[in-house]
Amino acid sequence: MLPIRSLFFAPANRADLVAKFPRFAADCYVIDLEDGTPAAEKAAARDGLAALVTGLRRSTLPGVLTVRVNEPGSDHYLEDLAAAWRCDIDGVVIPKLEDPAQLFPALHGLRRREREAPRESPRFIVGGIESIAGVAHAGALCAADPALAAVYFGAEDLASELGARRTPEATEVLYARSQVLLQAKAARIMAIDQAVVEVRDDSHFERDASAGRDLGYDGKICLLPRQLAVAHRVFSPGVDELAHARRLIAAYRAALARGVGTIDFEGRMVDGPLLKRAERIVALAGRPGAGAAP
Amino acid sequence: MLPIRSLFFAPANRADLVAKFPRFAADCYVIDLEDGTPAAEKAAARDGLAALVTGLRRSTLPGVLTVRVNEPGSDHYLEDLAAAWRCDIDGVVIPKLEDPAQLFPALHGLRRREREAPRESPRFIVGGIESIAGVAHAGALCAADPALAAVYFGAEDLASELGARRTPEATEVLYARSQVLLQAKAARIMAIDQAVVEVRDDSHFERDASAGRDLGYDGKICLLPRQLAVAHRVFSPGVDELAHARRLIAAYRAALARGVGTIDFEGRMVDGPLLKRAERIVALAGRPGAGAAP
Amino acid sequence: MLPIRSLFFAPANRADLVAKFPRFAADCYVIDLEDGTPAAEKAAARDGLAALVTGLRRSTLPGVLTVRVNEPGSDHYLEDLAAAWRCDIDGVVIPKLEDPAQLFPALHGLRRREREAPRESPRFIVGGIESIAGVAHAGALCAADPALAAVYFGAEDLASELGARRTPEATEVLYARSQVLLQAKAARIMAIDQAVVEVRDDSHFERDASAGRDLGYDGKICLLPRQLAVAHRVFSPGVDELAHARRLIAAYRAALARGVGTIDFEGRMVDGPLLKRAERIVALAGRPGAGAAP
Repeated sequence: MLPIRSLFFAPANRADLVAKFPRFAADCYVIDLEDGTPAAEKAAARDGLAALVTGLRRSTLPGVLTVRVNEPGSDHYLEDLAAAWRCDIDGVVIPKLEDPAQLFPALHGLRRREREAPRESPRFIVGGIESIAGVAHAGALCAADPALAAVYFGAEDLASELGARRTPEATEVLYARSQVLLQAKAARIMAIDQAVVEVRDDSHFERDASAGRDLGYDGKICLLPRQLAVAHRVFSPGVDELAHARRLIAAYRAALARGVGTIDFEGRMVDGPLLKRAERIVALAGRPGAGAAP
Repeated sequence: MLPIRSLFFAPANRADLVAKFPRFAADCYVIDLEDGTPAAEKAAARDGLAALVTGLRRSTLPGVLTVRVNEPGSDHYLEDLAAAWRCDIDGVVIPKLEDPAQLFPALHGLRRREREAPRESPRFIVGGIESIAGVAHAGALCAADPALAAVYFGAEDLASELGARRTPEATEVLYARSQVLLQAKAARIMAIDQAVVEVRDDSHFERDASAGRDLGYDGKICLLPRQLAVAHRVFSPGVDELAHARRLIAAYRAALARGVGTIDFEGRMVDGPLLKRAERIVALAGRPGAGAAP
Repeated sequence: MLPIRSLFFAPANRADLVAKFPRFAADCYVIDLEDGTPAAEKAAARDGLAALVTGLRRSTLPGVLTVRVNEPGSDHYLEDLAAAWRCDIDGVVIPKLEDPAQLFPALHGLRRREREAPRESPRFIVGGIESIAGVAHAGALCAADPALAAVYFGAEDLASELGARRTPEATEVLYARSQVLLQAKAARIMAIDQAVVEVRDDSHFERDASAGRDLGYDGKICLLPRQLAVAHRVFSPGVDELAHARRLIAAYRAALARGVGTIDFEGRMVDGPLLKRAERIVALAGRPGAGAAP
C-alpha cells in the first residue's frame, strides 16, 4: 500500500461535496459520517452511502476511498460499519479508538468482505487516536491487528478533552503527537498527522505539515482541497533532498568499496543510518504525484 | 469542587505569614510543614497547626484551606497527617507521591474525619508529583482514589533529581509536565502547574502560567501574593475568548438547525470538539473572581 | 565511577586513528567495531583488537577505554564480545539495545573477566538506546543490571527508523530524548546524549550539548577531537554557576541557622531542592579537567 500523504474529508450528508472528490488528487478520500455530519442527518447519510460510493466509482479516483464511521461508543457504530462494508470501498476510518476490542466489529466486517469479494490489495482500517485514553493506549491500539494500516492523530479532540489551548507551535500536544508517532512506527504502520482548523491560514498549514513530517509522520489530514497539494509536496522528498540523497548514496558506496565505513560527506559524518535514510528518500520520490516536488 | 487556579503557600513556622491569608484571594491556601519549614522547626510548627487554623477560621477565606505534610518517606509523615486532620481544614497536600500505597494513611484519616464530622463538600487530597518515580508512576497515582482531587507538578524537585537545568522555556521538563497533565486528565482530576522560583520576574511567571494553561493545566503554584491575580487571570477565560466562545456556540447552533454539522466560523473549521471547548469556556467564566479577566 | 562527559569514537579498522587516542583527553574512549567499521572489514578489525588495546595501554589514557561491539541482532555480536573481553578494556559498548536479554552474553563475559582478573574499579557496560523498540523499552533496559553503568541516546538511528527528519532544535526527538533520560536517571545510571553529525558546525554542537545538559544528560557522544573540550566545558559547572552555588549554600546554611527554611536568594525562592542541586554542582566541579570551565 502506498503511503497516505493526505486524508481528505467530505461530510456524508453533503452529496455535492463528495461528488467533487474526482476533481481533487488525494491519497485517501474519506466520506465522513462522524463529525462532519450532524446528528439529525446521520441515519439518512448512512442510507445514502451506497449511492455516493457507486457514483464515485463511475469516475477514476487517484487514491483509495474510505468511509469514516461514528465513534465506537456511539449508537451508530455497528450500523455505520455494516453500511460501509456493503459499499465498494477500500477501507473504513474509525474515530476515537480507545481499546483494541473496539476494532473487532470492523475486522469482522472486513474479513467477511475479503472472503466474499477478494481483491489484490486487501481492504484496511485507519484508526483515529484523538482522546486521552487513545493516547494512553496508543501502543496496544497500533499493534492490535495487521488490517490496521494507519492511525491518525487528532489534536483538536484531544485538546478539547485535556482542556488544552491550541497554539501555532503545537507545543501543547508535542508529547501526545510524538507518542502516537512512535507507537505507530513501532507497529510498522502509517502515521497521519493532525488537521489544521485555521482554514484561511495556508502558511500555518504548511508549517504544521513540515513539523509533522520532521517528527516522522507520513501524511496529514486535509480539510480543504487546496491543502492537498501542500501535503503532497511536504510529505514527498524535495528535489534538493532527493539529489542530496543520491549523491550521498554514491559517495558512501564509493567509500565502502575502499573499505571505509564512515565518511565526511558535505560537512556531515555519514554512516549506516544516514545511508538507509537516503535510500528511503529515493524510494519515496518514485511515488505518483511526488515528481513535481520543489 | 471549583477548579483550583492558585495553590498559595506559607510556611507553617511563620504564623505571621499564615495569618495574612485572609488578605489575599487564593483558590487554595496551603500551610506548609514541608520545604517551607526548616527541619528543626517542624515539630513545633506541627504543634502550632491547630492554633493557626483556628485563627484563620475566624476570618472568611475565599478559597479552601489545606496543610502540606512532609513527604511520605519522612519520619514526620504520619504525625503530620494526624495533626492536620485534627484541624478544621478542607484537605491535605502530600508532596513527592511515588506510590499509591503512600496515600493510605492520608485516606484513613480523611475517612474517619468525614465520618466524625461530615460536610456538604467532602474533604480532599492534593498530591505532589515531583520526582522521577512520581512521573514514572503518574498514571497509577492520579487514578489511585476518588479523594485525590488534584495533583501538582513540581519541576524544581524533579529537575534536581534529574540533574536538569531549568530554563525559561522549560523545554527540559516538557515531557514530564505533559505526562503528569495527561494522566491527571485521564483520571478526571485537576492538574496544577509548576512553581516559578524567579520571584522577582513577574513576566516569567505569566509566560510560564500561560504555557501551563495551554497544556491544559487548571492552575498554578503561587509563591507570592502578587502571583495570585496573574494566575487567576491566566487560568480564567479572557473576555475576548469568552465572547468568541459565545459567538461560536450561537453560530454552530444556527448551523445545526439548518442540518449543517461543520461550519467555517471566523476562519476556522468548527465541529463537535470545538463546540464542546466553547461551552466549557462559558462555564469557567462564571466562576467567582474570573469576571475581571481582560 | 566518574561521570562520562564525552564518549569518543574511532573505527576499529583505523589503527591510525585509534593510536591517536592518547593525544586527546576524553572521559571514555570507544574502539568501534559497529557503524564506523565497514562490514567487509569487521572480522579483520576484530582480530586486530588485542593489538590496538595493547598499544594503547603502553600510554596513559586520561579516561576509560571501551570497545563498541556490533548490535545484538548481528552475526558479529558474540564473537565481538568474546574478542573485546579478552582485551584489557574497562567496558563494552552495546549498540541498539532493545531487550534486556540481549545483555546476557555481555554480562557473562564481564563476570568471568571480573573473576579471572578482579580490579578495584569494576568493568562496565554502556548500552545504546537508538531504535523505536529501544526507546519503548527504555525503562526495562536501564534497570536491567547493575553492570550497566550508562546508556547513550542515538538520535540518528532512531530518526532513520521513524522516518523523522533531524532539525537543529531537535524537537523531533525531544520525546524520545526525554524518555531515555528519565529512565536512565530512574535507574540511577548515567545518560549520554546524542551525536551531532554536522561535523563542521561547532556552534551547533555546543547548542545541542547545552540542550542535552539542560535535560539532565551527563555527557555527549563526540565524533571529533575538537568536540571533546566543548563537551567537557558544557557538562562541567561553569565558574559563575559554581560561584553561585557556593554563595547559595552559604546563604541557605546561614538562614537555616536562624530557623528559616525558605529564602529569597538573589531573586529566587530557595529551599531544599535548590540546595541539593547547588551541592551537586560543587561536587562535579571537583572533577579532573573541569577546572578550566569558563
